[in-house]
Amino acid sequence: MRLPFDVEIAAFSDEEGVRFQSTFLGSSALAGHFDPMLLARRDAEGISLADALQQAGHDPVGIPQLARDPATVAGFVEVHIEQGPVLLDESRALGVVTAINGAERHSLSISGLAGHAGTVPMRLRHDAAAAAAEMVLAVEQVARRHDGVVATVGKLAVPDGAINVIPGRCELSIDLRAPDDVLRATAAAELFASIDAIAERRGVSLSRTVVHGVAATPCDPALQQALAASIGRVAGESEVRHLPSGAGHDAMMMARLTPVAMLFVRCGNGGISHNPLETMTADDAQIAAAAFIDFLNTLPVPA
Amino acid sequence: MRLPFDVEIAAFSDEEGVRFQSTFLGSSALAGHFDPMLLARRDAEGISLADALQQAGHDPVGIPQLARDPATVAGFVEVHIEQGPVLLDESRALGVVTAINGAERHSLSISGLAGHAGTVPMRLRHDAAAAAAEMVLAVEQVARRHDGVVATVGKLAVPDGAINVIPGRCELSIDLRAPDDVLRATAAAELFASIDAIAERRGVSLSRTVVHGVAATPCDPALQQALAASIGRVAGESEVRHLPSGAGHDAMMMARLTPVAMLFVRCGNGGISHNPLETMTADDAQIAAAAFIDFLNTLPVPA
Repeated sequence: MRLPFDVEIAAFSDEEGVRFQSTFLGSSALAGHFDPMLLARRDAEGISLADALQQAGHDPVGIPQLARDPATVAGFVEVHIEQGPVLLDESRALGVVTAINGAERHSLSISGLAGHAGTVPMRLRHDAAAAAAEMVLAVEQVARRHDGVVATVGKLAVPDGAINVIPGRCELSIDLRAPDDVLRATAAAELFASIDAIAERRGVSLSRTVVHGVAATPCDPALQQALAASIGRVAGESEVRHLPSGAGHDAMMMARLTPVAMLFVRCGNGGISHNPLETMTADDAQIAAAAFIDFLNTLPVPA
Repeated sequence: MRLPFDVEIAAFSDEEGVRFQSTFLGSSALAGHFDPMLLARRDAEGISLADALQQAGHDPVGIPQLARDPATVAGFVEVHIEQGPVLLDESRALGVVTAINGAERHSLSISGLAGHAGTVPMRLRHDAAAAAAEMVLAVEQVARRHDGVVATVGKLAVPDGAINVIPGRCELSIDLRAPDDVLRATAAAELFASIDAIAERRGVSLSRTVVHGVAATPCDPALQQALAASIGRVAGESEVRHLPSGAGHDAMMMARLTPVAMLFVRCGNGGISHNPLETMTADDAQIAAAAFIDFLNTLPVPA
């Protein structure tokens, strides 16, 4: 059988941005959004991206010519391990991604009043760590109130804390993600209102810095529907699982060029990821391939 | 006027235990509880306590002879800056110490499940820092429920925390003090029941180590009453403030020898202590001296 469109298989370099501290290096070239300033960026050994490309036999000058013409691309579909426990928890091999979460990250520093752990009565304290503890729970609560939102305090520390000193300062990070930017903005507004109220009630001061922000990438509804139909046929599922992607993917960059979709495959070992323990079964890989082939075979001819 | 007893004024060395990591060095000699093993202990420069004493013109071998005979000592009264904000907050120059708080210190390590901040839904998390946050608030709540108890989480950290990783581990310290050991035991039992329940509910594991424990030192009721009467006369106060001492003092050691009491003097600058900002007014020092002289002049002849 001959498909009514070409299929191009891409394996992108350095989506993670580990070597040159810039994500989506490969996909940005195809999407026509490669930033030429990155060519001068150097890795930990001092090798520039331009040199690394040349040493690998590539011509950095030719990168702009790699950009695809949107008029000739029907869509971009990425098959990826879930990197989380949702499909595993529900005993499903496959899922359709609704959107790649938008994310924002904040760095908070709380200043209270340091004091002697023995001599300052509870009612006269302005304990920065106790305020931070309430904020950590507020982060958790706001995420639980909004379906699809995840929020995490990954860094938490009393700098130079001592066992017998009431903390005068506490620092924490907040990572907030949602598949929809309005939903994320709503959750963030609730969260920071709650955090400000905690600081005011406890008489501690707060400084907050936004350290990262990226919009959500919604997946194309028609492509989602086609993927779901293929999963239904191949895996025999009557109700296919749709779920957001909490991690970033090349599809975020490719969405600047063309409609995107993603097929998620179950992640083993409790959903653990970015870890040598990350794993997928051969059976799940096979059913993912079968679903993807079904998807290609049944996709309507693009307009 | 000739007093019916001798007054001996003691200025004890290294109550804090900063140089040789052992508290009450001076008072333990008078109390007859000096530990001769300490003579071999070395400071940061490698100088032993025995050498330091000899260099200062003292004879370490004579220390046991410094021990007072309990039969010849009527009591030990210590005048001390409060090192806290209670008297300042209530606009009182002086207070009578009811007891020197007993204290216990614990080191807790919480193990949850590290995970990707974007991909693990809230309901599937075992976040060690969120569990720790609840425990920090439990520490605060249990102390607030019991009058006189203070409890502090001075150290709090997610080791190697990253902004986009759900904390798999969190460490914290607990310092719990009370003027009465039964009260402290009650508060500790409530606290650790609450902490265990938090760990169980959140599916995190907990290891806890007791790193310090010292019993409370009650002050002698008759000496307290005499000090209160003197404060009443000198400061013109109808209701004299009685309060526990949250910090440790030489009186804890002297209590092994004889009945003890303490007169607290207001601490300026918000009650800040162990800090160059610690201060007391000359007026407060004078009224403390006047109250103490009144106390000596009116104290009944010891039995």
